[in-house]
Amino acid sequence: MTPVAFHGEYGAYSEEAAVACFGPETVTRPYRSLRQVFRLVQDGSVEFGIVPVENSVEGSVSQSYDLLLEFPVKICGEVNIRIAHCLLGLPETRLEDVKVVFSHPQALGQCARFLEHMQVEAQPAYNTAGSAKMIKEKRIAHAAAIASERTAKIYGMKILKKHIEDYQENFTRFLVISTKGVARTGRDKTSIVFATRHAPGTLYAVLGELATRRINLTKIESRPVRSKPWEYYFFVDFQGHYLDKARAEALEAVKRSTTFLRVLGSYPQDQHQGSSDSAGHA
Amino acid sequence: MTPVAFHGEYGAYSEEAAVACFGPETVTRPYRSLRQVFRLVQDGSVEFGIVPVENSVEGSVSQSYDLLLEFPVKICGEVNIRIAHCLLGLPETRLEDVKVVFSHPQALGQCARFLEHMQVEAQPAYNTAGSAKMIKEKRIAHAAAIASERTAKIYGMKILKKHIEDYQENFTRFLVISTKGVARTGRDKTSIVFATRHAPGTLYAVLGELATRRINLTKIESRPVRSKPWEYYFFVDFQGHYLDKARAEALEAVKRSTTFLRVLGSYPQDQHQGSSDSAGHA
Repeated sequence: MTPVAFHGEYGAYSEEAAVACFGPETVTRPYRSLRQVFRLVQDGSVEFGIVPVENSVEGSVSQSYDLLLEFPVKICGEVNIRIAHCLLGLPETRLEDVKVVFSHPQALGQCARFLEHMQVEAQPAYNTAGSAKMIKEKRIAHAAAIASERTAKIYGMKILKKHIEDYQENFTRFLVISTKGVARTGRDKTSIVFATRHAPGTLYAVLGELATRRINLTKIESRPVRSKPWEYYFFVDFQGHYLDKARAEALEAVKRSTTFLRVLGSYPQDQHQGSSDSAGHA
Repeated sequence: MTPVAFHGEYGAYSEEAAVACFGPETVTRPYRSLRQVFRLVQDGSVEFGIVPVENSVEGSVSQSYDLLLEFPVKICGEVNIRIAHCLLGLPETRLEDVKVVFSHPQALGQCARFLEHMQVEAQPAYNTAGSAKMIKEKRIAHAAAIASERTAKIYGMKILKKHIEDYQENFTRFLVISTKGVARTGRDKTSIVFATRHAPGTLYAVLGELATRRINLTKIESRPVRSKPWEYYFFVDFQGHYLDKARAEALEAVKRSTTFLRVLGSYPQDQHQGSSDSAGHA
C-alpha cells in the first residue's frame, strides 16, 4: 500500500485519523495543502487520502467540500476523532510567558474562550502541528501552539496546558478519499452533491424524495456556485447505500429534479459518532 | 447618530458596505473583532453595526452566523457589495519582488488561482485593510496585501495589480444589526434560525411549511450546535415580512415543529443582488 496522504505536518489530527482508519502500521505522508492531497489521489500517486470535513464545534471545512466537487474522487470511508487540544511551547517557556498563540483557524476557534481568558494574540497558521514545528525550529519563547499531545512528543515540545478546548465534546469527522469505491457492508452512509434549478421550492422537492422514502438525512451543507452569485450546491449525507432499492429510486428522482447530481460515494458509517447519542438527524 | 461599527481597519470592505447603506456622510468606526461589533450594538454603545455574512465565491462567514445566535440583536438591513481586489505594496515594491501575500482568509480564497499562478506564499491575517496597514507600518518590501483600491488610497500604498479576484462576479453580502427593528417596506426579506428535533425528516417538514405557502427560500445555512456533536442550527432567509399573513402562519407552524425558533429580523431586500439574474432560490 502507498502512504496515506494527509494535509499538514506529522502529528496533525489528520494523521491520527489515518491511523484510526488504517491501523497503527499505516505509513502516512504529509502534504502542504488539501488540494495537493486530492491531486495525488486523483492521479494515482497515492491510493488513499484523508481529509477533514467537519468539526462538531466549528462546523464544516468548506475547502474540503469545494475540492470534493472539483476532483472526481470517491469517498470510501469516514472516521470521527476526538479532539483534545494542548497548548505547546518550548521546554523553557512558562504558561505566563506566552503572548502569541499559533494554530489552524479551526483550532483557534475551538479554544476561543480559553484564548480570550489568557488575553493572548491568536495568530492563524496553516496547520496545528505545523505551528508547533515552526515554534520549535524558530525557537520562539513567547509563543505557543495549539496542537495534540502526540504533536508534543513528536517535536519535543512542553505541554503548557492540556484540554484547552472550550467544549469537551469536540470531534472532527474525516473522509477517506480514493479513486476506487468500497464494498457494501450493510451499515453504510452515502454522500451526494447536487445543484437545484433556479426556482422556488426545489430544495424542498429534493429533500422530499428522501423523506418520503424514510431515508435519514444526517447532514446538509450548502456551498456557493462560484461562477453564479447566490446559487448553491448542496452536499447531503444520508444513511444507507446508494445501491439499496429505496436509495436508488430516490437518486433517480433527485436526478430528474436537479440540474446536477453526483454520488460522491457510499461507505461504512463510523459507529463512534462521538456522541453518547445516535447519529444526528437533520 | 453614533458611528456605525465595523470589523477591521479603515478601508475595509465592511466600511464600504456601511457607506453604501447609510450614505457618504456616515461616520464609521473600526473594531478589532466581529464579536466586539456585536457587543457594542447589544449594549447600546453604538446604534448600528455592519457585518459580512456571505461571499458569492467563498461562501458563508460562519462566525457572523454564530454571533447572530449568541447576541439578541436584530437584522435591520442588508447590502451586497461588489468585491474588486487589488494587490497592494509599498511604493518601491515591484510585482516581481513579492514573496508573501497577506490578507483575510476569505480574500486569499477569492484570489487562490491568482496566488497559485504568482507562486507566492499566502499568509492569513485578520483583515484585508489591516494587512495593507501592517505592511506599510513595518515597511515590508517583499510582501503585498490583498485589499481594495480605496485601501490603497487611505494608506498610500501602490497598486501592483488590479482585479486579481478569480471570479469577476464576486459579491459580499453584509447585514446591518441593531437592537431595534425596521419598518415594513413591501419588498422585505426575513431571516430566521431554528433547531430541529432529533428525528428524521424534521428539516423537510420545516421547509414544507414555507414551500407549501409558496414562500421563496433564498438561503439555508447550517451551523453546529456546539454542545451537541452532529446536531445543527439552520439559518434560513426567505422573501417577505414576518408579519405578512402567510409568513406569520408559517412561522407559527415552524415553531410547533422545532425545539427552538428565533426571528432574526425582517428588513428591506437589497435590490442589487449582484447578479444579472434575480435573487437566488434554494
